[in-house]
Parts: sequence; structure tokens; C-alpha cells
Amino acid sequence: VDRLAASSPSRLALGVFVVGIAFFTLLLATPISSATGEWTSLHDAMFTAVSAVCVTGLTVVSTATHWSFFGQLVMIIAVFVGGLGILTLASVLSLAVTKRLGVRGKLLAQQSMNTAASGKLGEVGSLLRIVITTSVIIQGILALWLTIRFWTYGEGLWLGLWHGIFYSISAYNNAGFTPHSDGLVPYETDALLLFPLMIGMFIGSLGFPVIMVLLKYRFHTRKWNLHTKLTLVTSGLLVVGGTLAWGLSEWNNNATIGQMSVGDKLLHSLFASVMTRSGGFNLVEMDDLHPATMVFTDALMFAGGGSASTAGGIKVTTIAVMFLAILAEARGTPQVQAFGRRIPESTMRVAISVLAMGASLVMVGTIALLASYPSATLDHAVFESISAFATVGLSTGLSGELPPAGKYVLIGLMFMGRVGTITFATALAMRHRRQLYQFPEERPIIG
Amino acid sequence: VDRLAASSPSRLALGVFVVGIAFFTLLLATPISSATGEWTSLHDAMFTAVSAVCVTGLTVVSTATHWSFFGQLVMIIAVFVGGLGILTLASVLSLAVTKRLGVRGKLLAQQSMNTAASGKLGEVGSLLRIVITTSVIIQGILALWLTIRFWTYGEGLWLGLWHGIFYSISAYNNAGFTPHSDGLVPYETDALLLFPLMIGMFIGSLGFPVIMVLLKYRFHTRKWNLHTKLTLVTSGLLVVGGTLAWGLSEWNNNATIGQMSVGDKLLHSLFASVMTRSGGFNLVEMDDLHPATMVFTDALMFAGGGSASTAGGIKVTTIAVMFLAILAEARGTPQVQAFGRRIPESTMRVAISVLAMGASLVMVGTIALLASYPSATLDHAVFESISAFATVGLSTGLSGELPPAGKYVLIGLMFMGRVGTITFATALAMRHRRQLYQFPEERPIIG
Ligand SMILES: [K+]
Ligand SMILES: [K+]
Repeated sequence: VDRLAASSPSRLALGVFVVGIAFFTLLLATPISSATGEWTSLHDAMFTAVSAVCVTGLTVVSTATHWSFFGQLVMIIAVFVGGLGILTLASVLSLAVTKRLGVRGKLLAQQSMNTAASGKLGEVGSLLRIVITTSVIIQGILALWLTIRFWTYGEGLWLGLWHGIFYSISAYNNAGFTPHSDGLVPYETDALLLFPLMIGMFIGSLGFPVIMVLLKYRFHTRKWNLHTKLTLVTSGLLVVGGTLAWGLSEWNNNATIGQMSVGDKLLHSLFASVMTRSGGFNLVEMDDLHPATMVFTDALMFAGGGSASTAGGIKVTTIAVMFLAILAEARGTPQVQAFGRRIPESTMRVAISVLAMGASLVMVGTIALLASYPSATLDHAVFESISAFATVGLSTGLSGELPPAGKYVLIGLMFMGRVGTITFATALAMRHRRQLYQFPEERPIIG
Repeated sequence: VDRLAASSPSRLALGVFVVGIAFFTLLLATPISSATGEWTSLHDAMFTAVSAVCVTGLTVVSTATHWSFFGQLVMIIAVFVGGLGILTLASVLSLAVTKRLGVRGKLLAQQSMNTAASGKLGEVGSLLRIVITTSVIIQGILALWLTIRFWTYGEGLWLGLWHGIFYSISAYNNAGFTPHSDGLVPYETDALLLFPLMIGMFIGSLGFPVIMVLLKYRFHTRKWNLHTKLTLVTSGLLVVGGTLAWGLSEWNNNATIGQMSVGDKLLHSLFASVMTRSGGFNLVEMDDLHPATMVFTDALMFAGGGSASTAGGIKVTTIAVMFLAILAEARGTPQVQAFGRRIPESTMRVAISVLAMGASLVMVGTIALLASYPSATLDHAVFESISAFATVGLSTGLSGELPPAGKYVLIGLMFMGRVGTITFATALAMRHRRQLYQFPEERPIIG
């Protein structure tokens, strides 16, 4: 595995995901997975498998009613495996980039593994062990809390345990599937249930490189590396900004939170802000949102979470680097800098590339959706495309209405958004080579 | 003027435009400008004045029926003055940046003025003279051709002359106003009318720095500077790509070109592609377009034309630099390069800033439109916002339906899109300063 990961990490990533998706598609299509005991159509089974493995949360059939208990179990195992797969693959790829570039400020994993873990497993094996252990512990604690909470709702021990585990995996892996037919709506004012879900989702969305730094240095902020600082600051700003924007534009919307108490309004706004960037749980219908809120939501979904996390989107560090470049330009400083560190030009170019790739995928996806299903409105097509690309899982309901061709478009977007962005950014970073000659400089006029 | 232009070029630009808009608003509001001899409301008069001075072409009242001949004359003079104003201001600002940065590959104007023009007028005065002379000659030739064409349609000499001058100014300045109530629809298959309009508009959209290089070096492509090469190549690719995309997605749309001959279909596709990037003339209704075509149109409008031209948008060189940065990243070359020249990091940062500013303006504009007029659909609000920001002037009809508040939103977008992007990019480029210390390098993970 070490050798394969070193020689062609991107191909390994793609291969693992394709095999995993094929396996879960097959399992979900069989009669034992459906509530009625019938075969599920290939496009619906594949859509659900991709949505689960890519921790998206979009559905074309009701999770609560279409699938049998076995089907739901397959789904949540697919989420668990998919989430772990993404975390490890992203970490492996970061490791490969770090080794290739030989940069200072290496991925923390490399250091901690060299000291803590035995050398026998190899770097990748040690990394896998750290990722799996940490993830399982976090999900276990969250599942325990949620089980107790559902138990107090009178669900009984076994059902409570099942729901606790399901929601825990769904939250930490930023999947957003719900086993209840009404989702979380019955619990929409229960802070004791919603806060643990938000915290689990937020931790999952930070990404493993950040989680490892936090585990090692806790809140000794001066020891944090640049990546951790940028991820936490940007995530925090997006959560606060998203809460304000969502709250302000929905405050008097009677279809959503207009009639609620101020406390519930704030809880809803915070929940929506946290979930929009990749979580995918929702308390209100997307179609009831004010059109302006839909635009904010599109933007937040596109932004996404942390690198090498279970969250999707173009990632918060991409946005941070772009913003820092603009800030440097506005201040007239010759280098892009943050927290006393200089960010090299090539990082900025990777950021532009990731942004351009994301925007292109969403645009092509939107056009393909409109072509396959002309009665879709543009705002719904854009929303569903971004939700799929950024593996968010919020939906205006369009996914369920689409003909098979449209579902395959979303399947492609989920896969590209999940596996594509990671391998793409890695492939770019791996390609850096030296150039012996330098052309004379010339500036075209911009703007 | 030289001293003011050198000390605070951006403030000069803003001042000149605000005064010009106030003047034309006043003229258009007076009874003599309207067909009925009544006062025109402030928001409609201001909207028309801003649309004319910013060479946008969006209308809230019919150009053909609402205004008197005097009103139409005021409008086309506003377009002529506004177009010249943008060309000269943009050139003056480029000059200021060139002087400030002392870069190689200076703006050609500086060289040609130092040799050709007398020193008495000063640099800015000479530049003005070159810009005005060239613009008037091009518009004169175009007007002559169009007059003959309208004359052969049996319009009579004087009406033909009026329409010839009106369309000539409207085309070269990328304004897109039409004095006919049906616009160009009656001439939709007349290549002898449409091609001159397209050529005039395309020349106007290249920008003065490119026109001057072409005038001096003709087609000795090896002497062209980087800016000229990037502008022409990108514009060419966008015209061809836009024609293909538009043609393919409308080919069988019976509401637009579905029933036409192959030749007319191609003519329509080419015309739409050329006009979409800033021209603003249209042969088909925007609302009849396939939803996918609307998305292409949004993207092309946002892209726009050349720097320091009468076209709007984020400009083709901005897109070219971003694309080159991505290409460099994909190839793994450490520098962004094109045509044997290296593009410095700061140019890339200006490009990111202009893109981010454009995207933010369109997003804020869209949200403001939806807030002021909740019955607007998202696709219409996005379309109208981009059309205003990029001073394109194509419309789904939303402009005319908006309440005054919504009209002021579009007024703000047109002004910011026209004057804002130019002064913004200049202000950024003017700020470059040296930094004596350098921080250690650290790479956050992207994507
Ligand atoms: K999700
Ligand atoms: K225009």
C-alpha cells in the first residue's frame, strides 16, 4: 500500500472509491435492502450508494420508508466507511505532497507517527490507525449522548441506540442522512439534541490535519500551524456570518422561523449556518426560504469545510488564501501573508485552480440538469448542483423528481466533488518542477 | 488636469462620471425630452442617464416611444460622451499605473505620444486627442455604411442618417440602445447590417491599448505586446466558444432559431455570442432562450471584453491570467507564462481581486433585487444583475417591472461595474510598495 500510495495516490483513491460504490450499489439494489422486498432500480441504488459513500446525504427515495432495516444499515456503514476512506485518503495524499515538496511545516502526522507509532506498519498504516482510532472515539462519544437523548424521548433502548449510532455517524461524517421520515423537525427546539449534532458535524468538518494539531497542542494557539489557524478562523467567521445572514433574512418569514421565539430563531439560524457548509441536516424546507436566503445558502455550500475532512466544497483554506491575496493587493504588500507566515505563489495558484474547477463543475452540472429535465427552474438546478458537488445534501426536492439521466448527473457531481477535488489538488501540488530559464516579465492590464 | 490625473486619478474618474450623470439625468427629466411633453420621474430619468453614460443599454422605458427626438439625441450624446470618457479615463489610469510602476512593456500611448504628438498638450492631452480622433473616425465610417444601408431600406436620407449615427455610436461604444421599437428584429437576417454592427462592437470591445497596438503594428504579430495577444486570443476563443454553445443549445428551440435556415441559425448564434459579452443588441427575446443558454449567457456577460474598452465585465485579460495560472499549476511550472513572457504574482492577485469584486457585486445586487422585488425569480434577478454590472444591457424584462428601489440597485450596479472596476484595479496596482522583511514560508492545504 505504501508503494502504491507513493507512486500514484490519485489513482489509488479513485480505484478504492469506485470499487466501494459498486459494492454498496449492489447491496442496496437487492430485495433484502428494500422495505417492500423488491429490487431497487439501478439508478436509485447507485444514487443512494454514491450519496452515502461520498457522505453527501442527497436522497431520491425516502430513507425512512423505502429501505428495510438492512438497507438503512448498509447505508450508514457506507457512510462510516466512506468517511474514513476520505479522511485517510486525504491524509495519505497530503503526506505524499509533503514528502514530495519537502516543505517546512510538514503535516503533523508525519512527526507524531515517527515518534509515537512503531515503524512496522509504515507511514500510511500508522496514519490509518490514528485516523480510525480518533474517528471511532469521537463517533462513539457522540452516539452515547444521542442514544441517551433518544431514549429519554421514550424510543426504547434498542431503537434509541440504533438512532444514536445512525445520527452520530451521519453527523461526524457530515452526511446528513436521517432515519426518521420527518428528519429532525420534531426536535427542532431541542438544544440538547441539536448542539451535540452541530458539534459533531463541526469537528468532522475541520479535517484531520486540524484535529491532530488540536489533539497535540490543545489551545496553545502559538504552536498551531498556519493551516490550523486559517481553517479555524475562516470556519468561525463563516459560521457567525452565516448565522447572521440566515437569521436576518428569515427573521420575519412565517413559512420558516417568523412565528418562533427569539431563542428558537437564533438556534435555527445557527443550526442552518453550521449545517449548510456541508452537514446537510435541515429543520425547515429549502423551498420555504426567502429567495435571498437561497443565494446565501448556495454560497455557503460552495465554500464548504476544512481540507482533508468529511466536508465538501472548495474548502475554507481556499477561500482564506484568496481573501489574503486580495488583502495583500489592497494593502500593496508584495507577498501574501497571514499570522507571520508567507504563503507561496504556487499555493495561490492551486486555490485558483480549485475554485475554477468547482465553478466549472457546478456550471456544467447545472446545464446538464436543465438539459435532462427542462421543467426544472434555474434556482433549483443551481441549488441541487452545488449541494451535490459540495456533498452537502440539502435539497429543494429536485433530486427525487429527476429522470434517471438527471440522477446520473448528480451522481457524477457528488463523485467529482468528493474524490475529484482532493485528487485534483494533490495532482497539481505533486507536479511542481524546477525551471532553469526565466522569461522576461510583462504585465497585461487587468480589470 | 495632468496634475490631478497624476495625484488622484480614481477620484477624478468618479467625479467626472457623477457630474456627467447628474447633467444627463436633469436633461432627460425635463418635459422637452419626453414624447408626451411631461416630466419623466427621477428614477426613470436617472436610470436612463446612467445606462447611457455607462454604455449599458438597459432600459426601463421604451427608447422608441417614451422619448422625444430631443430625448433620444440626449441619450446618444450621453453614450458618445460616456464611451469617450471611459476610454480616456481608462487610458489615463493605465498611464498612471505604468508611470508609477516603471515597468517594462509600458503602455504604447506613452511612446507614440512622446514621438508623434507635440509636448505642449502634456501626456494626458495627447492621449485624449489620439483616443478621440480614432474613435470619431471609426464611428464615422460605421455611421456612413449604416446610413446607406438604412437608406436602401427606404427610410429616406435624414431618417437613415439619424439611425446610421445612432446605431454606429450605440455599437462602437458597446451600448446596445436601439431607436426602433422592435430593435433589430426586422433586420435579423440582413448580414450587410449585422456584420458591420458586430465589427464595430468588437473593435470597441477590444480596448484602446489594443487598438493603438493594432494601428501601429498592424498584423506584425511578433511586435504585439502581451496585453494585445492575450486580449485578442481570449476574445477570439470566447466568440467561437459562445457561438458554438449558443448555437448548439438553441438549434431546435422553436421560440428562437429552431425554424430558421442553417445560415440564419449560424448568423444568429454568432451575433448572440458577440453581443452577449457587452454589446447588448439582441435578435431574440431572452425569456425564449433555453434555460441552459441563459446560464451560458450569464457566464459570457460576466466575462466581458477588453481592458480600457467600452465593454464591461471582469475583462478577458482577467480570465486569461486566471487560466494561465491554472495551466502553470497543471503543468507544474513555477511561473505563470504566456507567449514567452512571465506574468508577475501581483498581476494574478489583481485578477483574483477583480473577480472577487465582480462576483460580490453581482451577489449583493441579486440579493438586493430579490429583497426589493420578491416576485422576481432568481434566474431573472441574476441575469439582470450581471447584465447591469457588466454593462451589457440584455434584459429579461425585469428592469421595467422593478419598483424604484430595484431600479436604484441596478443604477448602483451599472455605475460600480463601469467606473468601479476600472478605478479599483488602478487603485490596487498603484499601491504596490516594497517590504523590507520577509516572513518564513508555510503552505496551508488547499482543496
Ligand atoms: K453532507
Ligand atoms: K452594453
